Amino acid sequence: MALELDQRQSAARQWFEDLRTRICDAFTAIEREAGSDASFEYLPWDRTDDSGDDGGGGVRGVMKGKIFEKVGVNVSTVGGAFNPEFAKSIHGAEDNPAFFATGISLVAHMANPHVPAVHMNTRLLTTTKSWFGGGADLNPPIPYQEDTEEFHARLRAACVPYGPELYERYKAWADDYFYIPHRQMHRGVGGIFYDHLENESDALFDRNFAFTREVGEAFLDIFPKLVRRRMDMPFTDEEKHQQRVWRGRYAEFNLIYDRGTLFGLKTGGNIDAILMSLPPDVAWD
Amino acid sequence: MALELDQRQSAARQWFEDLRTRICDAFTAIEREAGSDASFEYLPWDRTDDSGDDGGGGVRGVMKGKIFEKVGVNVSTVGGAFNPEFAKSIHGAEDNPAFFATGISLVAHMANPHVPAVHMNTRLLTTTKSWFGGGADLNPPIPYQEDTEEFHARLRAACVPYGPELYERYKAWADDYFYIPHRQMHRGVGGIFYDHLENESDALFDRNFAFTREVGEAFLDIFPKLVRRRMDMPFTDEEKHQQRVWRGRYAEFNLIYDRGTLFGLKTGGNIDAILMSLPPDVAWD
Repeated sequence: MALELDQRQSAARQWFEDLRTRICDAFTAIEREAGSDASFEYLPWDRTDDSGDDGGGGVRGVMKGKIFEKVGVNVSTVGGAFNPEFAKSIHGAEDNPAFFATGISLVAHMANPHVPAVHMNTRLLTTTKSWFGGGADLNPPIPYQEDTEEFHARLRAACVPYGPELYERYKAWADDYFYIPHRQMHRGVGGIFYDHLENESDALFDRNFAFTREVGEAFLDIFPKLVRRRMDMPFTDEEKHQQRVWRGRYAEFNLIYDRGTLFGLKTGGNIDAILMSLPPDVAWD
Repeated sequence: MALELDQRQSAARQWFEDLRTRICDAFTAIEREAGSDASFEYLPWDRTDDSGDDGGGGVRGVMKGKIFEKVGVNVSTVGGAFNPEFAKSIHGAEDNPAFFATGISLVAHMANPHVPAVHMNTRLLTTTKSWFGGGADLNPPIPYQEDTEEFHARLRAACVPYGPELYERYKAWADDYFYIPHRQMHRGVGGIFYDHLENESDALFDRNFAFTREVGEAFLDIFPKLVRRRMDMPFTDEEKHQQRVWRGRYAEFNLIYDRGTLFGLKTGGNIDAILMSLPPDVAWD
């Protein structure tokens, strides 16, 4: 890849790729425990920038297993120039369309409707500004209060060292973001969402990067626990159907409202990677 | 319903409702031939206008049968005032948000992947302007040239009495409209699409209404023939899966690009009626 990365961008990219590897290993280990030999297939893709230059690319990792009906873990590192119309809507790109982005994005749709689906994404964006953003949210077709509380407690623990009010603020942001207006409902039981953690100094970069790493660690710590807790529970055809209908809401959110989907479509990302989040088996009754 | 309809609006509404009944009867007859006792369930819904006044409503008809895996036939007659932001984007409503709309909308998703899915919609809109619009397009998971040609020939025959160039123009409009930019593909094998047939005189209203009726008649004539031709063909699991994946493209189009979906969401229509078009069983691999 011919994109030139500065030291910070390289460090972030390295972290996102290492986290990807650790997450995929953890998920694959769960498949082994369930007696499945499923594994991730990794599909690299290249991006051509609007300018015609090399625009970076990424790797889409997908596993279709016994426990993970479909899980996608993408890393991408892209850059170039936004198209002028889109640039107007991006922080710090209003007068200069140059951009760089590196991140990890994960969506897991589970075979067993008692196991929550989940989303996690963290990223470093650079325009004339530089900032981190990210979040994670839990999407159980059949919610368990215990799971919801532990998921939130782990994210809270990741936030606490960075400020006593952060968790409440980022939780509220997730409640605001992961909302489906036309259904007047949330898409799941929430989590955290944050954006525009501005890297205005080396110290702030270090702090924001450390926080972003904590979010990744929290996810990697808590989600496999929730999977193992529920993955052997029996379920009925009706519960499976309930899950398929519930996934329709998830697809509606991602196609109509999700900013990450829009960002990918508007910046010439890989369609299969962008829409990797869509569920493997959906019903609209 | 307390909406006050003028004579033209009443006549159009009556036609759309009669067409609905004839279509549903024709589809139900096909189910009987296949030995199924499936029938339409009719669900009325009321709309409250933004102003708080009665805003009309509609009836959503849904059948889940042996041949028609899921077919929705909606009629609706709504009116009131657009919200000011949305009014700006609607023909003739830029300076006056009052509107009235009556129409029929149909989407059929078929059990057998050899049978084409189909969409048909015709409508009368009134703002400070009055116009008809509509169209129909064929969406075969497994296309047959014979079916495509006969579908287009029947629509062409409906257009011919109204002008020698109409079919080509409306076919091109459908090709332009039923396109999925992020996939760089059409959603099916096309049909016709027309809009803004302005009713600037009684004579033009009569002509545009007659044309709109012809489109409905053409649909009712040709689609059951295509269904009967293919409905007994054997199909493989792989062909069924191909159909489910193909339906994902259809869902993407309707959720991201379809103006009818947007119109419904922006005017407080019934969510279940608006999203009735979404397929019953979808796969994103």
